[in-house]
Amino acid sequence: MDCVFGIDVGGTNIKLAVIDREGQILDHRKIATRANEGPDAVISRLANELTSFIQADQGWRIRAVGLAVAGAVDARAGVVMVSPNLTGWRNVPLAERLSEMTGYQVVVENDANMAAFGEGWLGVGRTFQSFLVMTLGTGIGGGLILDGWVWSGPFGCAGEIGHITVDPEGWLCNCGNTGCLETIASATGVVRMASELLAQGGSPVLENLINENGDRLTAEIIATAAFKGDALANQVFQRVGRVLGLTAVNLYNLLGLEMIAFSGGMAGAFDLFIGPMREEIKRRSHILPPENLKLLKGILGDDAGTLGAARIAWSHIELGERLGSRVN
Amino acid sequence: MDCVFGIDVGGTNIKLAVIDREGQILDHRKIATRANEGPDAVISRLANELTSFIQADQGWRIRAVGLAVAGAVDARAGVVMVSPNLTGWRNVPLAERLSEMTGYQVVVENDANMAAFGEGWLGVGRTFQSFLVMTLGTGIGGGLILDGWVWSGPFGCAGEIGHITVDPEGWLCNCGNTGCLETIASATGVVRMASELLAQGGSPVLENLINENGDRLTAEIIATAAFKGDALANQVFQRVGRVLGLTAVNLYNLLGLEMIAFSGGMAGAFDLFIGPMREEIKRRSHILPPENLKLLKGILGDDAGTLGAARIAWSHIELGERLGSRVN
Repeated sequence: MDCVFGIDVGGTNIKLAVIDREGQILDHRKIATRANEGPDAVISRLANELTSFIQADQGWRIRAVGLAVAGAVDARAGVVMVSPNLTGWRNVPLAERLSEMTGYQVVVENDANMAAFGEGWLGVGRTFQSFLVMTLGTGIGGGLILDGWVWSGPFGCAGEIGHITVDPEGWLCNCGNTGCLETIASATGVVRMASELLAQGGSPVLENLINENGDRLTAEIIATAAFKGDALANQVFQRVGRVLGLTAVNLYNLLGLEMIAFSGGMAGAFDLFIGPMREEIKRRSHILPPENLKLLKGILGDDAGTLGAARIAWSHIELGERLGSRVN
Repeated sequence: MDCVFGIDVGGTNIKLAVIDREGQILDHRKIATRANEGPDAVISRLANELTSFIQADQGWRIRAVGLAVAGAVDARAGVVMVSPNLTGWRNVPLAERLSEMTGYQVVVENDANMAAFGEGWLGVGRTFQSFLVMTLGTGIGGGLILDGWVWSGPFGCAGEIGHITVDPEGWLCNCGNTGCLETIASATGVVRMASELLAQGGSPVLENLINENGDRLTAEIIATAAFKGDALANQVFQRVGRVLGLTAVNLYNLLGLEMIAFSGGMAGAFDLFIGPMREEIKRRSHILPPENLKLLKGILGDDAGTLGAARIAWSHIELGERLGSRVN
């Protein structure tokens, strides 16, 4: 059976899946990235894993490999330009290297872009042509789909929604800018806001939860407190909703998107931030009707990246077939 | 000779031009829009003008008509949905109506989009694939070109860069939102900022210029004062530069644009706002190198709209030719 490898390379784990043309996951594995060993070791380990995966013969004919990588990727060249989570990755020609080692055609893209592409193929984006998927986690990633295709931009690494400035004189971001969306609407931002508010005054519900959690404050705990009606915790998610709404309405005015979906750990707090988010969009959208912009939760979870990577591999194969040549 | 009509329908004037496949303007006319007479009268007058234009036979074979209209346009349907400057235009099927009256194939688009498309064909955007043209006038319009093609969005009226929020609790905008880019970086915004600053304290250079201008404060006078070194006037354009920089860097992080160009009356103040604009981009761009984003002045001036409209008409003709059918 014709298949592709869909692979999601993160800072901690590499997820591999064998995926058919309809998007069915036939088999999958997870290996540790061991990013500290550097790009050469990681790529060799990945190549070996692909080879051993296929030796267990199950009648698969692997047509291509799609890779979703956490970092800035020049998709046309198949090069990982830089990655915050992969030590020493700078201008690594990943597609070429992995192709030489395995003999497969290899396509490389950014992981947030591929999560969006996956959601567009089989998830929340199936019925939309132009939308954004925001991954709310420790940081914030974004994948932009325009007219059914991933928008990587002329420099190959567009979609950096987490580093849009929403509060010009706000907190310093890891990227070096101040007031990035990521400083407020990520798990990190939520913890920071709650800490500041806790220093100003008490919140019995939240303090209790922190105690139960071994004195550790996490975004999950703050969300739990907010769902229990804690005022301080709700204040935090209202601010999250307002800055997400501000970002969303600006994107909407500029690009006329049909939908924004949320995935990642913080998407569990969707019901906490969606109200203030909608209010902000309504308040600021006067050209296009605010209700035309749908706000939804991603549905593919952790599989979005591998599925998107598989879809982009299939797209390259299909393009080759249309051009009358055989890829692979 | 094969030609198209490129037409720019504004609130005050309608500009018509006969344009060949290479973009040469063979002849042009300007008529008053008389927008207060409503859409029926304007469309009839335009149809008559096209007919009389062509009766003066010069061997032109008009293949199609491209229209750039100030307002929200559903480009696929050829419908003007709403226009701030054309009285009573609401869901007007302009392409269909004008086509019935003249027999020509008619394509309709937003004027700011067409100005950008024109600059991409023959102007400042010739060597770029993905860029934005901002028209700084009484308001602010934007035309977005992605991968060489105008981005109108799924609802047909994307590119509303003037209504991006840059100062959430700022001035009330005509659109109903507060703190739109247009409230600061348009001619209207500049006059408002200068008025507020003048109320706080004196500025001999600017006050002198206002006197000489019959007590009227205009953006042009403020720019003149700034070029003469007036501190208050320079303060105004520094604020303009900062909000333009903030908008630009957000677009850059999101879309990875290669270039932003400025046209319209306020583009004359380019040298006044470009310094603080570049500083803001440099301060906030840490994913992509700030110098990759070029900032330039449009070069087609008032012809950008008619040329863009002509280009989109030619594109439709060429598409028809490639599909093996004759348009017209």
